[in-house]
Amino acid sequence: LRRKRSSVLRNPPPLTTATILSKTYYNVNSHQPESLDWFNVLVAQTIAQFRSDAQHDDAILRSLNNVLNGPQIPDFLDEIEITEISLGEDFPIFSNCRVIPVEEDGIGGGAGAAMGEGGRLQARMDVDLSDFITLAVETKLILNYPKPRVAILPVALSVSVVRFSGTLSISFIPSSPPTPSPTTLAFSFLDDYRLDLSIRSLVGSRSRLQDVPKIAQLVEQRLHSWFDERCVEPRFQQIVMPSLWPRKKNTRGGDDEDVGHDRR
Amino acid sequence: LRRKRSSVLRNPPPLTTATILSKTYYNVNSHQPESLDWFNVLVAQTIAQFRSDAQHDDAILRSLNNVLNGPQIPDFLDEIEITEISLGEDFPIFSNCRVIPVEEDGIGGGAGAAMGEGGRLQARMDVDLSDFITLAVETKLILNYPKPRVAILPVALSVSVVRFSGTLSISFIPSSPPTPSPTTLAFSFLDDYRLDLSIRSLVGSRSRLQDVPKIAQLVEQRLHSWFDERCVEPRFQQIVMPSLWPRKKNTRGGDDEDVGHDRR
Repeated sequence: LRRKRSSVLRNPPPLTTATILSKTYYNVNSHQPESLDWFNVLVAQTIAQFRSDAQHDDAILRSLNNVLNGPQIPDFLDEIEITEISLGEDFPIFSNCRVIPVEEDGIGGGAGAAMGEGGRLQARMDVDLSDFITLAVETKLILNYPKPRVAILPVALSVSVVRFSGTLSISFIPSSPPTPSPTTLAFSFLDDYRLDLSIRSLVGSRSRLQDVPKIAQLVEQRLHSWFDERCVEPRFQQIVMPSLWPRKKNTRGGDDEDVGHDRR
Repeated sequence: LRRKRSSVLRNPPPLTTATILSKTYYNVNSHQPESLDWFNVLVAQTIAQFRSDAQHDDAILRSLNNVLNGPQIPDFLDEIEITEISLGEDFPIFSNCRVIPVEEDGIGGGAGAAMGEGGRLQARMDVDLSDFITLAVETKLILNYPKPRVAILPVALSVSVVRFSGTLSISFIPSSPPTPSPTTLAFSFLDDYRLDLSIRSLVGSRSRLQDVPKIAQLVEQRLHSWFDERCVEPRFQQIVMPSLWPRKKNTRGGDDEDVGHDRR
């Protein structure tokens, strides 16, 4: 290239958060929260299709089975058998979407350094789900105390998510230019989220079943920390998004179904 | 697995489009179009960051250069030199989002067969962009008629997108369970879109410059068909989306930055 880059690439100076808001006609102080009803419909349709597909396929059962009986299974547990999976009948409802500026050390802070002006913009929305999503398993508890295998107890455990509500934060971060994918989605939940579970546990042989609240408590703690450790602030999930640039290989529909031979 | 799958996976029958709409409280006949101001802000921030990153990097120039001087370059053109890239200063504005049922042969028709009831739901929104996004190049035109290399003419060409407006349709399609990624995004534009270009061409040596409208016309046709062939109905882009399931390896933030060692 004969010319210097600086003369070829003509760009205005980097924009501040204030300019971005002004160019998109958004006043963070006065803008009303926006509804997301259209999004709820699209998400519901996707979930409905997913549930419908699951009927025709062992995939969910198989992959859950692999997770539950993976190498990390503790030595006091026998093989875990799945006795019920229920994927629910209802759909999450997203609402009250609003844009707020956040400090750089929040979500997406690392990648936002190039923005110059401190603070990034993120969208926050309420999420609510009332449903009955159940996983029930049976296994055997092997008591190794006071001596190894002193007792082997059948255990039945059923865990249901009955309610989830929380505040979801999302923002987009473009990846640095050398990477082929242009954008990353960052999301997390505020720590005031609510996850209501219904947990039943039965320990013992058929003639002497007993509910053991301690087990329910333990499972509940585990599920909450699983969630906390992954997507509750200050932690967030950062997902690399595919490019949306129109490409021949992603084209469907039309008369000529000769897709995929041109890769541009 | 000792139990039959049918007894383990308890699911309601597949939902119809009507049930999905009712469970998400959306009446397609009476629901008002929804604003997308929050989305405009997030998109604008992403584009602003992209433009800012482009300043510090040759990547755009290099990849455009590779595309322009690729193997498909016709023999009547000399090497193409990029003389100006301008990424614009404004942002697309999305608005008036509404859900409409479409026939199965429309967008996403193929994968929707399992839904049972004909018709899928898609979201439509208006998109508008007024900006000045420019690519200017110089090359030499090699005339091979009436005999090979009968003349070599310098050519300067500048193409700017000054206005784009159209109606964008989007929907999500979950992929079949064996595939690891859960969802596909399908999008296309209705054919009443408007793409206004400003094209200048100069042919000839410095002393005898001439604007050649035929060249502008040709470039304009090319750009329109590039767009039509990829994402104007009945054609649509189908993009595989990454899983949003929270994973340890996608977790950022928090005190312990020990990410990536646990892959679940």
